[in-house]
Amino acid sequence: MEHKLAVVIREDLALSPGKVAVQVAHAAVSCALSARRRQKAWFRAWMDEGQRKVALRAEDLDALHDLAQRAKALGLTAKMITDAGLTEVPPGTTTCLGIGPGPEEQVDKVTGQLKLM
Amino acid sequence: MEHKLAVVIREDLALSPGKVAVQVAHAAVSCALSARRRQKAWFRAWMDEGQRKVALRAEDLDALHDLAQRAKALGLTAKMITDAGLTEVPPGTTTCLGIGPGPEEQVDKVTGQLKLM
Repeated sequence: MEHKLAVVIREDLALSPGKVAVQVAHAAVSCALSARRRQKAWFRAWMDEGQRKVALRAEDLDALHDLAQRAKALGLTAKMITDAGLTEVPPGTTTCLGIGPGPEEQVDKVTGQLKLM
Repeated sequence: MEHKLAVVIREDLALSPGKVAVQVAHAAVSCALSARRRQKAWFRAWMDEGQRKVALRAEDLDALHDLAQRAKALGLTAKMITDAGLTEVPPGTTTCLGIGPGPEEQVDKVTGQLKLM
């Protein structure tokens, strides 16, 4: 069984590639640290396998909320990212959702229909 | 004093925005976990301040090596990221460099001349 972390970015914000990268990184760090505390076996396996990640996109904030709810129902870490330091959108805008790290099969149950970023 | 993490991506690889985001996230996770173990005060301050990050670019691998050397000389975490799972470049290609998290002033001494991604 392999493990991965998925980050889903809102495509309706039309962020620049640099801003997207920073938001995806924020989600990855937050999810990794959370899993490290609360899902040690998944975190450890994910790190040992090379911390695989995938960047995906969804249409808007409602879509992120729906995905987060489904991830949590499967016991996966799910973290909405809101960045105060953005210059492209108002402060407090939710930009992306991190899911995992967790077993690939479970992450795919939530994100399998989404397009790559 | 504020703290930040900088990630410098190789612009000569011309990676897609999605691949760049995943590489920057890889660097951020690796640097954060390393600082958490070895530079606890900087890591803690950085997290408390909202884990500020910046995505920058440099021309090629030689430029990354030079930046890494300068970062280490200042006592900053510096991690070259090599991703095995890339489809756009050969396996083992170094894609980016993470620097920090550390005091902004010190990070800027290394990365202050670089352009935003």
